[in-house]
Amino acid sequence: MAEDDLLHFEDLEPGMVFPLGPKNVAADEIVAFAMEYDAQPMHLDEEAGRNSILGGLAASGWHTCSMMMRMMTDSYLLRMAAEGAPGIDYVKWKKPVLAGDVLSGETRVLDSRTSNSRPGIGIVSFRHELRNQRGETVLESENPIMLRRRAPEASRP
Amino acid sequence: MAEDDLLHFEDLEPGMVFPLGPKNVAADEIVAFAMEYDAQPMHLDEEAGRNSILGGLAASGWHTCSMMMRMMTDSYLLRMAAEGAPGIDYVKWKKPVLAGDVLSGETRVLDSRTSNSRPGIGIVSFRHELRNQRGETVLESENPIMLRRRAPEASRP
Repeated sequence: MAEDDLLHFEDLEPGMVFPLGPKNVAADEIVAFAMEYDAQPMHLDEEAGRNSILGGLAASGWHTCSMMMRMMTDSYLLRMAAEGAPGIDYVKWKKPVLAGDVLSGETRVLDSRTSNSRPGIGIVSFRHELRNQRGETVLESENPIMLRRRAPEASRP
Repeated sequence: MAEDDLLHFEDLEPGMVFPLGPKNVAADEIVAFAMEYDAQPMHLDEEAGRNSILGGLAASGWHTCSMMMRMMTDSYLLRMAAEGAPGIDYVKWKKPVLAGDVLSGETRVLDSRTSNSRPGIGIVSFRHELRNQRGETVLESENPIMLRRRAPEASRP
């Protein structure tokens, strides 16, 4: 996309909402992520998951975060003049994400501020929420994302 | 491992330290993770990375978290009676993680408390830090992990 067509800092206002998902969580994806990054028994094996407090073959919490990131890029982030994020304010894994779940939710713009140290950048705070097919919230998180500001000559009329 | 040989809630005391890494961050791993979960240009392409504020082909922040999780499981988590985590208190991505970096660090036990709602479980707070080959901190994070308590009959003498 041309730079001017991307959503910039100035285009995002508190209360704006972007949809996330739906995303089907397959057992083989849960196991593949776990083999690479989080080989705890409840993320690798259905029976071990049933015997844990998670109650079934459950996605690693980092896998759920990574699936959310994919939903974010698919929904809006690749249309934004994004420059990465300085961190995550918090993540709450409120319910297990189990094989066969379908996740969806939304990102909401909370607030935004310019950067003192980087005049070309603004920082926008987002709240993300994912729910399963029963409407139960499985993940809640907030984080700031850095966005380029529009150059004065590129401002919309 | 037999249940009694695992590290339980009672075995972890504030100030205990577990090493993380070293982990070589390869360009093809950065790109593979990004293709699946975070297809922003600076995570996919060396030149796009150089032109971004990250300064080179840079790992997705979620990839860095996932690599840390792998270091945690390799170092200590598979030796613990762990029951997952309710969330992440915060993550700070303090410096870009670039292709060719070597990450290492440690996890420190901050404090621990029993659970009112789950008498068989205790909650231990951990602080994680990763540094690159130049000694620069690239990631700092804290999170609670749930651990099974030793049954009275399994207590060590």
